[in-house]
Amino acid sequence: MSDYTPPKVWQPKESGGQFASINRPEAGARFEQELPVGKHPLQLYSMGTPNGVKVTILLEELLAAGVSGAEYDAFFISIMDGDQFGSGFVDINPNSKIPALVDRSVEPHQPVFESGAILLYLAEKFDRFLGKNRAETLSWLMWQMGSAPFVGGGFGHFYAYAPEKYEYPIDRYTMETKRQLDVLDKRLANNEFICGDEYTIADMAIFPWYGSLVLNRAYDAAEFLNAQQYTNVLRWANQLDAREPVKRGIRVNTTWGDHPVKERHGAEDLD
Amino acid sequence: MSDYTPPKVWQPKESGGQFASINRPEAGARFEQELPVGKHPLQLYSMGTPNGVKVTILLEELLAAGVSGAEYDAFFISIMDGDQFGSGFVDINPNSKIPALVDRSVEPHQPVFESGAILLYLAEKFDRFLGKNRAETLSWLMWQMGSAPFVGGGFGHFYAYAPEKYEYPIDRYTMETKRQLDVLDKRLANNEFICGDEYTIADMAIFPWYGSLVLNRAYDAAEFLNAQQYTNVLRWANQLDAREPVKRGIRVNTTWGDHPVKERHGAEDLD
Repeated sequence: MSDYTPPKVWQPKESGGQFASINRPEAGARFEQELPVGKHPLQLYSMGTPNGVKVTILLEELLAAGVSGAEYDAFFISIMDGDQFGSGFVDINPNSKIPALVDRSVEPHQPVFESGAILLYLAEKFDRFLGKNRAETLSWLMWQMGSAPFVGGGFGHFYAYAPEKYEYPIDRYTMETKRQLDVLDKRLANNEFICGDEYTIADMAIFPWYGSLVLNRAYDAAEFLNAQQYTNVLRWANQLDAREPVKRGIRVNTTWGDHPVKERHGAEDLD
Repeated sequence: MSDYTPPKVWQPKESGGQFASINRPEAGARFEQELPVGKHPLQLYSMGTPNGVKVTILLEELLAAGVSGAEYDAFFISIMDGDQFGSGFVDINPNSKIPALVDRSVEPHQPVFESGAILLYLAEKFDRFLGKNRAETLSWLMWQMGSAPFVGGGFGHFYAYAPEKYEYPIDRYTMETKRQLDVLDKRLANNEFICGDEYTIADMAIFPWYGSLVLNRAYDAAEFLNAQQYTNVLRWANQLDAREPVKRGIRVNTTWGDHPVKERHGAEDLD
């Protein structure tokens, strides 16, 4: 049994394992720092985490489809070094999380934050990848936004990052992660993509989190999760993973993996 | 120190405290059950939790604004009794979470799930409460969807519902909940509403979670969180809470609180 009794009023103490130096109970800028600006209409400030690569996959898909106006500069925001707490970043995303986008093709320049909002903003701007049934695409996009915190902030944290292996939270978040994978597995049993026969931003949102789990690219947890039981998710993940724009997108704003591209300012950086 | 070592492959065991009987690692229907259908264009299947009342607040706001076509039947889905695992519910939301909506004013009838998707679907359908700056409203709506799982599934679970008081998860999620409240507090210092001077679906999404925290309607945690320090969130929460449509919306699909309305099939049920 736990022998901990919460105090009347919580007081902060160092917490968060390897992220301890980053996490604080206060929001807002911690230092002054302007953001760099490149030459393209779209300026992305990000890192190649699952939430980051959602956006670079979409941008690479748009460019591969010949959409003009989708050219972008992708600047690296090192979340381990606290770049997200610089004043310039906080100005465009007061929540201090990657990814954040500024669309400089409109006046005034439009900031957008939260990966799901950026996906929807860009898909609407260029009228691509929204699917035939808009409500269905929105439902699955929102499903990803509301579900993945149990995978990343829950399962991943307690399985891989927390300073100790705590049994109860690991059990809690493993069960939920497997339930979510089973939701997807049942969905993909009779659908080529999340929204039927059309590839949409819902796939691009879901792949970096759940595809990474079944392809064993996240937390080294595929065996623990018995990921191979989700055969339909695996089939779909491999299908997306074979797409050239996906291969390009997942390299952007990384300093790890095969052929990392820390910053991207033109197609040649990825070619 | 924890003396737990995760196994190679996770095996389910009973977990989840008071939700233990509900949580399983499998998705899908557990029994056959058709959903009831009322007389109005919009059919809501829900419960008056924070995610549920987001939608009933919007619907009551639409009706108060005189929008025709927003009349709705709200059926009660008891998530403690597992109603969300009936086949009819799973057909409209394979994720088995409330709220779920069916729009019967269009052919074929349109299911929508995830509270954020329902808010956006209805706001677009009736062209209301989207704000002047669509990208800003989307950003804050998505912020709520991606952030509240740390409040509900994280803080609320470990502070109020888990079978024991585990110090590390309570510290982790308390810090994040306070950080999120501080994000809102700084935002609302210079803005009447989340998106400036316009009341939008972002407010309706955020109020049921974060307003409930500062008004001490969730987890009895306002003292623990020192909620009164977030004076701008409190000002905004009280302002929304005084609106008649909000007062109506938060009563729908409840069996608790003042004047609960378990099911709503017409304005007279709330008058």
